[in-house]
Amino acid sequence: MILLKGKYVRDSIIDSVKDYIDVGIDKIGIVLATDDKSAVIYANSQIKMFRKYGIIVDFFNPDPFVKEVNILNKIDEWNENANVYGIMILAPMYKHIDRTHIVDRIDDIKDIEGIKKINLGKLMIGEEAPCPPTAVAAIEILKFYDITIEGKNVVIAGRSVIVGKPLSMLLLRYNKMGNATVTVCHSKTENINEVIGKADIFFSAIGKPGFFKASTLKNNAIYIDIGINVVKENGETKIVGDILPDELEHLYAYTPVPGGVGAVTNAILLKNYVESKKRANIHCK
Amino acid sequence: MILLKGKYVRDSIIDSVKDYIDVGIDKIGIVLATDDKSAVIYANSQIKMFRKYGIIVDFFNPDPFVKEVNILNKIDEWNENANVYGIMILAPMYKHIDRTHIVDRIDDIKDIEGIKKINLGKLMIGEEAPCPPTAVAAIEILKFYDITIEGKNVVIAGRSVIVGKPLSMLLLRYNKMGNATVTVCHSKTENINEVIGKADIFFSAIGKPGFFKASTLKNNAIYIDIGINVVKENGETKIVGDILPDELEHLYAYTPVPGGVGAVTNAILLKNYVESKKRANIHCK
Repeated sequence: MILLKGKYVRDSIIDSVKDYIDVGIDKIGIVLATDDKSAVIYANSQIKMFRKYGIIVDFFNPDPFVKEVNILNKIDEWNENANVYGIMILAPMYKHIDRTHIVDRIDDIKDIEGIKKINLGKLMIGEEAPCPPTAVAAIEILKFYDITIEGKNVVIAGRSVIVGKPLSMLLLRYNKMGNATVTVCHSKTENINEVIGKADIFFSAIGKPGFFKASTLKNNAIYIDIGINVVKENGETKIVGDILPDELEHLYAYTPVPGGVGAVTNAILLKNYVESKKRANIHCK
Repeated sequence: MILLKGKYVRDSIIDSVKDYIDVGIDKIGIVLATDDKSAVIYANSQIKMFRKYGIIVDFFNPDPFVKEVNILNKIDEWNENANVYGIMILAPMYKHIDRTHIVDRIDDIKDIEGIKKINLGKLMIGEEAPCPPTAVAAIEILKFYDITIEGKNVVIAGRSVIVGKPLSMLLLRYNKMGNATVTVCHSKTENINEVIGKADIFFSAIGKPGFFKASTLKNNAIYIDIGINVVKENGETKIVGDILPDELEHLYAYTPVPGGVGAVTNAILLKNYVESKKRANIHCK
């Protein structure tokens, strides 16, 4: 039974990209237009990570009365700035802001979260594009541990635009880390535990603490827990996944939470940043 | 056991859209840049259909030495023409032409085949957009016959960008004709008949004559055969589906080939045309 720790995957990815960064020159634009506490925590972790690798963070954190046009102007400024290779728009946003308008304004190449429609379309047709980091991270963990996906019966719980759907498209690609038989299930799925019980590899991204049980999975199955849920237990706050690790011995491998997919996601974001930089430089030549 | 005939579905769809056409004024641009015989046959059927409902067909059928730029110029001309509400680029194209370049050039709204990346991205995030007609047709047949999809175990064979993938996204939408548990299987799927044998609704779009057998499906299952395969039998040419109808009594419903999905696809293309016209007129106001 293999514990699929995220940190080695993260380190390996970061090692492969960090030399492409021009420290103190390369920039990223991050918009945080909300006072949502989780978003603030997430923003801080992103900022810290980018700074750690020498990327200058241009952090735009407007007050609650900001106009959409001010955010759009900021995006335009970043789009035109040749040192800005990535732009991130953290969710949620103040209710009077239409996030779609903001996201649509990002230069296609600078969309390092892979959330623009054009980039999701590219993912669907198999054209190179930035892909949503969490979905990529879930696959990269398996790749790092030499677990191929081809021909496997893969089940994904959750159909969000940032994880479930792009992950299904990645798993259908024509390569060893794709070519899976892909089932997407969700809140409307009947007998969901029966579906999951047949998975060779099970990915969960529903955001419900301990909703599934590891014991439901078949012998030699693998689970990748994408859920990051904050819960209170005996007065203490802790982070748990979507899957309750009630029985692990029968599994082939699984990711812990925390320390699994979450640890890799930021590294993929950095990788997307560097790939965006490479693309931008190709375009310039 | 219900025979899901396409013609009633087709007629109903056409009835719902034909009054929006300004006969003899509305135009469509169709590019056929190939001498592939099936493409020529398909083009003729499209042209006939659009003309039947009063749409002027601007048919661009260049010789094999045409330059990409000439096709692009034609697309630009159609993009700028306010009477052209739809543009179709038939596949395949002469080998020296990059079809992606041509498709990318189409105005987003006029892409009535829903093959532009931006429109596939919109489909993925659930934003209104033209969708690939064959995928839509497969669902419209079920809708016409009052068969809901929500909560069903749906299996799709085939992962093409024009059918399998967009169909999977449509079936995951949050409504009665979506909300399905969706499995996509393909040539790399192990024990494919076992997977199919569990489907409540089975869609096949692999383009292999009689590859699957109706007898493989479980009791009360439904199959929607999207395959249109030309075969020779005893010297005669005929059209068959992907599914061999070797046993039908145990099924709840199924589509014949020919006369099933194929009959509806053209109607959806006409519907997409009319919706494109409506969108264009909203944009003008």
